[in-house]
Amino acid sequence: MSVILPFVKGHGTHNDFIVLLDPDNNADLTPEQVRWLCARHSGLGADGVLRVVETQSYAAGRDVCPGARYFMDYRNADGTTAEMCGNGIRVFAHVLVRRGWETNDTFAIGTRGGCMEVTQLGSDRYAVHLPASADPFGDGFDVVVADSTWRGVGVLVPNPHVVALVVDLEALGPLREAPRLDPSPSEGANVEFVELRAPGRIAMRVHERGVGETQSCGTGACAAAWVARLREPARSEWIVEVPGGHLEVMIHGDDSFTLIGPAEIVAEGVVTIP
Amino acid sequence: MSVILPFVKGHGTHNDFIVLLDPDNNADLTPEQVRWLCARHSGLGADGVLRVVETQSYAAGRDVCPGARYFMDYRNADGTTAEMCGNGIRVFAHVLVRRGWETNDTFAIGTRGGCMEVTQLGSDRYAVHLPASADPFGDGFDVVVADSTWRGVGVLVPNPHVVALVVDLEALGPLREAPRLDPSPSEGANVEFVELRAPGRIAMRVHERGVGETQSCGTGACAAAWVARLREPARSEWIVEVPGGHLEVMIHGDDSFTLIGPAEIVAEGVVTIP
Repeated sequence: MSVILPFVKGHGTHNDFIVLLDPDNNADLTPEQVRWLCARHSGLGADGVLRVVETQSYAAGRDVCPGARYFMDYRNADGTTAEMCGNGIRVFAHVLVRRGWETNDTFAIGTRGGCMEVTQLGSDRYAVHLPASADPFGDGFDVVVADSTWRGVGVLVPNPHVVALVVDLEALGPLREAPRLDPSPSEGANVEFVELRAPGRIAMRVHERGVGETQSCGTGACAAAWVARLREPARSEWIVEVPGGHLEVMIHGDDSFTLIGPAEIVAEGVVTIP
Repeated sequence: MSVILPFVKGHGTHNDFIVLLDPDNNADLTPEQVRWLCARHSGLGADGVLRVVETQSYAAGRDVCPGARYFMDYRNADGTTAEMCGNGIRVFAHVLVRRGWETNDTFAIGTRGGCMEVTQLGSDRYAVHLPASADPFGDGFDVVVADSTWRGVGVLVPNPHVVALVVDLEALGPLREAPRLDPSPSEGANVEFVELRAPGRIAMRVHERGVGETQSCGTGACAAAWVARLREPARSEWIVEVPGGHLEVMIHGDDSFTLIGPAEIVAEGVVTIP
């Protein structure tokens, strides 16, 4: 049976999302519905779907962050769920603020990765505080693209990332397929390739599990800064250039980040999901 | 200054369009605005824009087809204009019918390629009558992709196409760049690669000028059937398989086609164009 829902299309540094407004939790999406929505030509097209659900209407939300008014039900373009999305949560927060559903400068949003605190810094600029665990996977990975192999470091933000430092991002060519990881993480990982550009400034390209190469990944930018800091341990503030713009990352000790960046709303309307 | 317009997102065989509702002709789009709209990650995303303008409000429309109530102001994703769009005009017609702006089964739509007659055949199925001119470019073209060269035939429907028969469509690989044409048509051309599948049935892939490889091209399907008929001159009805579905083409003598296919509406809303 088809579902009719209000939506907002937006992006953070060109990482784009369909935000579905379903506060009463009437439309727990199937993977097929997510794939239909995200299909670039036959659907609305996006890197992912962010469903807005009131925490009190959603058992999984009450379990993970009972203090947040809204839970962010995040799905990748391939229909799979993911813990968190650093660019998506800014777009999600922007929609809540623009609709008047959140009226404070700082508020919590529930995610599968736990409670996330978001702060509005300007009309379309947001900071999100993210927990981190460095190198939870062991001693690292071989990251293989075509005939090249790099050494990668694992970081949880709280979704899994593997970061490889490279000399020349452009020389990688298009990342049409997922880089191979050895050992292979059981739930997969986003893979970031990072070039050191200047003190406190890095550039990054990313292949997201379940999506493909994207213009940006917020939690990936945090993971990238984390690994870059291994070369510059005293520095806590980083600029991360991504193909879709740039993000700022502050690293707090060994256990958290603040990710700062823009959130843009492009269009609003109603979508009929088959 | 930003422009706020109602839109409909739809597709015909996965050739997708943003239909902008601007009957009073308040928003003659700049190429930058079209590119912004069609950008897949930072805009709404589409192969092209179809602006609905009342013919009486638009001088170019009155010149080309004074009898049509609406003119289809068609732009490619790169901001350029084009004469016609065989998949787009079905989506455009479907929007007019669904809004109640056209109430007859058959009506004319003005395009830069002239008056086009459209007939609704079912709830989301339309036929469009298209004029044609075969081989207006002379003796044909060399069509070059990577290391391979085919012989191509030119057809106007009324936008320019070059059609090459190939043995294996898949062997072409992704058409990331425009095939090279020799001689090079002054206004460019869409290029169709066509495989003969069975009597009256062909499969096609297309590179559209100003867009790239698309899932389908309606006028290209007509051009492809035209060239296939050179091998089977008695056959006037053709099924054309495209990556996004299939189309039907009827060839009437030497000067026109009927193109039949689906039109799907995915979402409706309001977009703020910077």
